[in-house]
Amino acid sequence: MTNIVKGTAFLFLLVFGQAYAQTDPLPSWNDGPAKKAIIEFVKMTTAKGSPKFVPPEARIATFDHDGTTWVEQPLPTQLVYCLERVPAVVEKKPDLKNIEPFKTVLSGNREAMARFTERDIYMILAVTVTGMTVDDFNSDVTGWLATAKHPRFQHLYTDLTYQPMLEVINLFRISGYKNYFVTGGGQDFVRAYSERSYGIPPEQVIATVGGTKYGYDNNGRPILTREPRLLFDNHGAHKPEAIHIAIGRRPYAAFGNSTGDKEMLEYTGAGDGARLAMLVLHDDAKREYAYGPAQGLPDTKVGTFTQTLYDEAKKNGWTVISIKTDWKRVFSFDK
Amino acid sequence: MTNIVKGTAFLFLLVFGQAYAQTDPLPSWNDGPAKKAIIEFVKMTTAKGSPKFVPPEARIATFDHDGTTWVEQPLPTQLVYCLERVPAVVEKKPDLKNIEPFKTVLSGNREAMARFTERDIYMILAVTVTGMTVDDFNSDVTGWLATAKHPRFQHLYTDLTYQPMLEVINLFRISGYKNYFVTGGGQDFVRAYSERSYGIPPEQVIATVGGTKYGYDNNGRPILTREPRLLFDNHGAHKPEAIHIAIGRRPYAAFGNSTGDKEMLEYTGAGDGARLAMLVLHDDAKREYAYGPAQGLPDTKVGTFTQTLYDEAKKNGWTVISIKTDWKRVFSFDK
Repeated sequence: MTNIVKGTAFLFLLVFGQAYAQTDPLPSWNDGPAKKAIIEFVKMTTAKGSPKFVPPEARIATFDHDGTTWVEQPLPTQLVYCLERVPAVVEKKPDLKNIEPFKTVLSGNREAMARFTERDIYMILAVTVTGMTVDDFNSDVTGWLATAKHPRFQHLYTDLTYQPMLEVINLFRISGYKNYFVTGGGQDFVRAYSERSYGIPPEQVIATVGGTKYGYDNNGRPILTREPRLLFDNHGAHKPEAIHIAIGRRPYAAFGNSTGDKEMLEYTGAGDGARLAMLVLHDDAKREYAYGPAQGLPDTKVGTFTQTLYDEAKKNGWTVISIKTDWKRVFSFDK
Repeated sequence: MTNIVKGTAFLFLLVFGQAYAQTDPLPSWNDGPAKKAIIEFVKMTTAKGSPKFVPPEARIATFDHDGTTWVEQPLPTQLVYCLERVPAVVEKKPDLKNIEPFKTVLSGNREAMARFTERDIYMILAVTVTGMTVDDFNSDVTGWLATAKHPRFQHLYTDLTYQPMLEVINLFRISGYKNYFVTGGGQDFVRAYSERSYGIPPEQVIATVGGTKYGYDNNGRPILTREPRLLFDNHGAHKPEAIHIAIGRRPYAAFGNSTGDKEMLEYTGAGDGARLAMLVLHDDAKREYAYGPAQGLPDTKVGTFTQTLYDEAKKNGWTVISIKTDWKRVFSFDK
């Protein structure tokens, strides 16, 4: 063995050894079918000579965001951000003060806000996340995330990422997978923290997209201004369509937690060779939340995991991840 | 020096040495301001310790396609494909036979076809590239490209890529740049050969996008069907918007050849640090084509390089690439 070969071999060990040999790549997972399915899938698709080997350029993994990689209760974080921006918007446009749904937002009546229709929410989005440049929006979201805290956990929202899912994302990455978010959330909102919090760069955030307008600032410099115009609504059957537009390849692995992820899992699972499709079930009211009809609990409007989805998962061989049973800890700050 | 360090150093030499030291990375370029601008830009943004150093994750280069990396005369290749598909479509839908613009296409009258309006072309696109699954479309385009030949050069269209531009794309890639197409062409058409012909993978093709519909085939397997519905028209000011949606970062280098690329170059050039903006000028009727008002020639409807664009380039410091002067050879089959 020459020195060069020795050096190269050492480098490979350095990169790949950690995941497979010396240490557990998923230390926050309890042993069980979910952990086993993930580890076996990665081995099967990346080990040289494996009959299910996937070439590096085809290694695509997609992750829903809210409720799959971080907390979405009692409200999705982006909606909290929008609600908290309303007073600043009303200051600039005082006419909104007496118009619904802004009147209710300003009243602080949480019960009334919980009854908001999709149209109400769309109106709030339309005034709170548009009209500024994409750079200014990014700065504002970044600033908000640096101080805003979750009402129950009293931690920054970016601390409420699921530690077990961060380990999965990391295992996929060091195994040559390209990780994508495929989320119904707003693209630029998620991009403001996806690289820092998940190691997922902006070009790998597939999301709901609003229009922007190209123009010039007072100094004649080109700017992109966010407009109240929906270009692509990334939910349900639109997720495989968005995956086709953004990637042009079928994923090998997909993770979700609600009926809005069904088609993405279906599309992923229908590919040939080894495919992994998993659903996070929120069944741990003590450490996180328990919600959704799949466990006989009321539908909470966000992250609906219906009995039909549960049956679909069984039928198609999708693995359901029980937070209660499969996760040793939920957050990095859990002991 | 330990063996490991020696081995690593050798690996680095292997990867980076070729481009910078031992051989000319742009052998098909004549020495001149264009070649110099490219080489200096790459050195400046990638050499360790350079004040204009760009971190690897931010190294984004965008390329227009038709007329910038391959021939677009006498007609863009995708339009030729669509025109040649018309007889097969009419066989299935005989009613179209007597309707314009299909009647003219079937007549073979090239002069009449040259007068087609945008609406005519849109109608042809709508019936020739929709109604099939994305996989079937990919197969059909791949099959067509394997045999269809350019009327003048009598070579496959994929042989009509510009050798000097392939060298630029390769130099950028081995220097850690991520290369994207940003084209007004149809996304799935370009994807059918972008990886093979340019080393640009499907997820790095930003283009005009039509809608797809998620559904199921007769065996209940999920499919995506191409619909006659324009989702995103990627020309002019829409190019920076598409770059923001697909990448979320401003490019450091951009290459184009027409007024439809102006905003992309402007947006790229307005970033801080070193930026490279270049325009290919078609001024070589002998080896390729000469067209556009910038050289006092008639506007050909495709790839318009106006005098205004030429002036804009001078004003903004964009480098104009003269095919006649800057390129030693145009195609790989040129001597």
